[in-house]
Amino acid sequence: MDKNTLPPKKKLVADWQTLTRTFIRPENDAAKSTLIKYMEQILFGLHDFLKKHVGFTEEVSLLDLSTRFTDTLISENPEKKLTDVITDLVEDIAPHAVNVASPYFVGHMTSAIPFFMVHLKSIVTALNQNVVKVETSKVVSVVEKQVLAKIHRLIYQESEAFYHEHIQNIRTALGCFTENGTFANLTALWVARNVLFAPKKGFDGVEKEGIQAAYRAYGIERCVVLISRRGHYSLNKAGGLLGIGNQNIVAIDVDENNRIDLDCLHKTIRKIKNGRTKTAILAIVGIAGTTETGSVDPLPKLAEICAENRIHFHVDAAWGGPTLMSEKYAHLLAGIELADSVSVDGHKQFYMPMTCGMVYFKDPTIMDAIIYHTHYVNRPGSVDLGIKSLSGSREANSLILDSALKIMGSRGYALLIDHGIETAQKFAEEIEKRSNFQLITPPELNILTYRLYPSHIKQEISEQSVGQKTRINEKLNEINRTIQRLQREAGKSFVSRTTLKTKNPPEQDIVVLRCVMMNPMTNIKILGEILDEQEEIYQRMLIQG
Amino acid sequence: MDKNTLPPKKKLVADWQTLTRTFIRPENDAAKSTLIKYMEQILFGLHDFLKKHVGFTEEVSLLDLSTRFTDTLISENPEKKLTDVITDLVEDIAPHAVNVASPYFVGHMTSAIPFFMVHLKSIVTALNQNVVKVETSKVVSVVEKQVLAKIHRLIYQESEAFYHEHIQNIRTALGCFTENGTFANLTALWVARNVLFAPKKGFDGVEKEGIQAAYRAYGIERCVVLISRRGHYSLNKAGGLLGIGNQNIVAIDVDENNRIDLDCLHKTIRKIKNGRTKTAILAIVGIAGTTETGSVDPLPKLAEICAENRIHFHVDAAWGGPTLMSEKYAHLLAGIELADSVSVDGHKQFYMPMTCGMVYFKDPTIMDAIIYHTHYVNRPGSVDLGIKSLSGSREANSLILDSALKIMGSRGYALLIDHGIETAQKFAEEIEKRSNFQLITPPELNILTYRLYPSHIKQEISEQSVGQKTRINEKLNEINRTIQRLQREAGKSFVSRTTLKTKNPPEQDIVVLRCVMMNPMTNIKILGEILDEQEEIYQRMLIQG
Repeated sequence: MDKNTLPPKKKLVADWQTLTRTFIRPENDAAKSTLIKYMEQILFGLHDFLKKHVGFTEEVSLLDLSTRFTDTLISENPEKKLTDVITDLVEDIAPHAVNVASPYFVGHMTSAIPFFMVHLKSIVTALNQNVVKVETSKVVSVVEKQVLAKIHRLIYQESEAFYHEHIQNIRTALGCFTENGTFANLTALWVARNVLFAPKKGFDGVEKEGIQAAYRAYGIERCVVLISRRGHYSLNKAGGLLGIGNQNIVAIDVDENNRIDLDCLHKTIRKIKNGRTKTAILAIVGIAGTTETGSVDPLPKLAEICAENRIHFHVDAAWGGPTLMSEKYAHLLAGIELADSVSVDGHKQFYMPMTCGMVYFKDPTIMDAIIYHTHYVNRPGSVDLGIKSLSGSREANSLILDSALKIMGSRGYALLIDHGIETAQKFAEEIEKRSNFQLITPPELNILTYRLYPSHIKQEISEQSVGQKTRINEKLNEINRTIQRLQREAGKSFVSRTTLKTKNPPEQDIVVLRCVMMNPMTNIKILGEILDEQEEIYQRMLIQG
Repeated sequence: MDKNTLPPKKKLVADWQTLTRTFIRPENDAAKSTLIKYMEQILFGLHDFLKKHVGFTEEVSLLDLSTRFTDTLISENPEKKLTDVITDLVEDIAPHAVNVASPYFVGHMTSAIPFFMVHLKSIVTALNQNVVKVETSKVVSVVEKQVLAKIHRLIYQESEAFYHEHIQNIRTALGCFTENGTFANLTALWVARNVLFAPKKGFDGVEKEGIQAAYRAYGIERCVVLISRRGHYSLNKAGGLLGIGNQNIVAIDVDENNRIDLDCLHKTIRKIKNGRTKTAILAIVGIAGTTETGSVDPLPKLAEICAENRIHFHVDAAWGGPTLMSEKYAHLLAGIELADSVSVDGHKQFYMPMTCGMVYFKDPTIMDAIIYHTHYVNRPGSVDLGIKSLSGSREANSLILDSALKIMGSRGYALLIDHGIETAQKFAEEIEKRSNFQLITPPELNILTYRLYPSHIKQEISEQSVGQKTRINEKLNEINRTIQRLQREAGKSFVSRTTLKTKNPPEQDIVVLRCVMMNPMTNIKILGEILDEQEEIYQRMLIQG
């Protein structure tokens, strides 16, 4: 039946009364219970779906989906009532979203969050404060400064007197909230750049005059950031954005533990110092939990090198930061307190909803390098947090972190962290026990990589020539790429894949499967099932040729 | 009684079972009803507060508040249960937040939002998708591309065929979501910079090689952005960040309507072209709704100038963009369709919760200038929206806008826009009727500025000398600063203040009161009361000397 010949549904019309009613919170019980009914529909409707599967299935492919979303006209009159929109989201959208909350979804740094996060976010939304200025946030600006001090203390462990001085000091800043790790890293390098090329006689500073003038004023031709090959791409992006060029984010080789190779770093520094092109080192970045392997760079050594050479030391702890709350594993991040700046993400191991990043600075006055004022807000001397911030308008995510810390306690977080690390250790053992797998990067935190490596191929390879080894590796890459895809498409579990380089010659790209153990419901039984499924997929591939 | 001698409250202890329960959505009815009870507490508890006052009162001053938030230790064990945290937020935090939803809160671009936004945000939070990659968002990436096309069409009105080609095209992009207008403007200038200094023979492009190399390759020494004095400070920040220097964001004078003065612009362009310093013009920015006065620059003229001189034309429509949905007032933004890029904010006149920005591009391939790939996500050829994005991890705000458009229809939004503009017009009339006030900038959209200007001073001033006029103006500035502060502290209503310059000589800074009419519940009666209160405050000031 043609759409046009269907019996006409009551047409919705935009009218002022209906519209303004949505701006008034309901007074009578009937209206209130309707609002609550919607919330039930959301909380428990989504619930039922979220139990079902991981969801990145090809049952309905992306291509199919994309053909369903092609209308580009905004309807003049309302298309749907709220209740129908919610039903659509619950019944039509959610089933084709990805169930990142599943314990079988271990492929990315996105996972289940405690359900109370939905409540906390609702409060933030209902209050709708804008933290860019105190006139639209008041107490929230004060709470935010407190949370910043709490996490600063977790990282830097400064004295009581230090925090007493700075916690609510409107002239200093211990850090700031950003929207994600990308912006936290960008803020750190932005500050470091402006400090390196600070105003001096005859030069008003890089922020005002730009890179060209800065290089001239400081007599250099190039400016670099040194970071291991495992560095997050946001640092390259920051290099591009900040005008120093992303080719100047120099990737240093890693050792066999995927940590920055200190010999290579030393060599690079020497080469830069002795090079013909006058080059400034803007920062050295240590990683506390690389995205691909979860490795932690030797932070105390990096701090030493930075101190000796007077280089800004940034630590990207977007992933690993919360490990500091674990009595058992905080030591893995030793040296982080020596960093000039540290990035941490809220939506990762603080289990906050998308998205929240933070950046912290050792020196509470260093953010003066990025001050902006205006006539109507962010005036000098005000409490406005927007004065020292990459962002403009910003939501009150700090309330969520503050509340979560109170509800969980650092020990609550530690239980999650410990579970992740210990589950990863057990998983590594399980992988090593199975003859058809090869553990590639053992977990240091809660991330590991491995690949399917059929035992019959393992037995053959020791006898092969280098050329044959290369061909076998390429075949393994193909197998693992396919297994990852087929498993994802089957929709029951999800691991991700990335490409690492072998350390032993011949240097080759190896495709690995990557697992992130952060969901507390993910256990060794589930991980065993994921391996079983991968072996089954491989067997089927063999049969089907 | 000393805190320590109080009967001991049952101490909370972090334990695994309690903790993991928060990750599982409740199965039984009792647990479900508890969750819903919390939501009721949030939705209706906040409600009661939000009715009370504007809230930026000095009853409890910021200084007092700041002394209450000074603890910097994260508690080891849980401090509070969820229910107590919610109670605290509702009873202790909310009363000291700012009631931006009050119809008496007309000082900033933050206002009431329809209550269904809280529901929509809850869905986004519960799904917790990360739109940086399709593996953690799937259908949401597709929906996002559709919403982008809808708003692109609202702005650019390209053909059906154009949208058919690009809406779900994974190689092209009509724009992207950002977290706010600051990032939208930054993205636009970032793209424009990279296009201006694109790779060419012997040069790999500014993104890779940096500003210094770019200037050398293109034979220039300086690069500027031209924008009126009313430009948003985010553009200065973008200049600083992108390495061109914020002093090179050149402020062009405005005419008597607070629009960019075209004569000045022409003169500046000629001066740049004939200047000794070889200078490239990176972009000219037109503003569609300035933050301070709501003025709209002459967009068609700016487009012409840009076309003639082959300069990137950016329009900052963070505020005014949604005016395009109004049949009555869309014409005010005529010429916006000629822009190379356009910024629009979701949390402003799309009435979305904090925060959402967007940037749109006329050329669907121009965002290729900011592509980033990695090994584990954002691979070439994938649907991953993170490939062309300032942001990394990003929440699925597009679902909120998509739903809101369906619930409201463009006519629903138009009713809000029209109401704002027409209320501003009525308010302007009211101000002009009152002898103790002076309208400074009549509303073009829904923003106006004025000041208290006692009639007895008005009568005197025509007879005064220039020196005396200046002194009187300074006195008026002081009066208006004080009135704004006292009214804010009284907590019933809130207008903001900013500083403009008089056009007529002698050029002086004048402090003005600024009102933004976006709350549909704000009407002329309320605005009259706000004026009454200001007159009363002035009378009291007179009496108290």
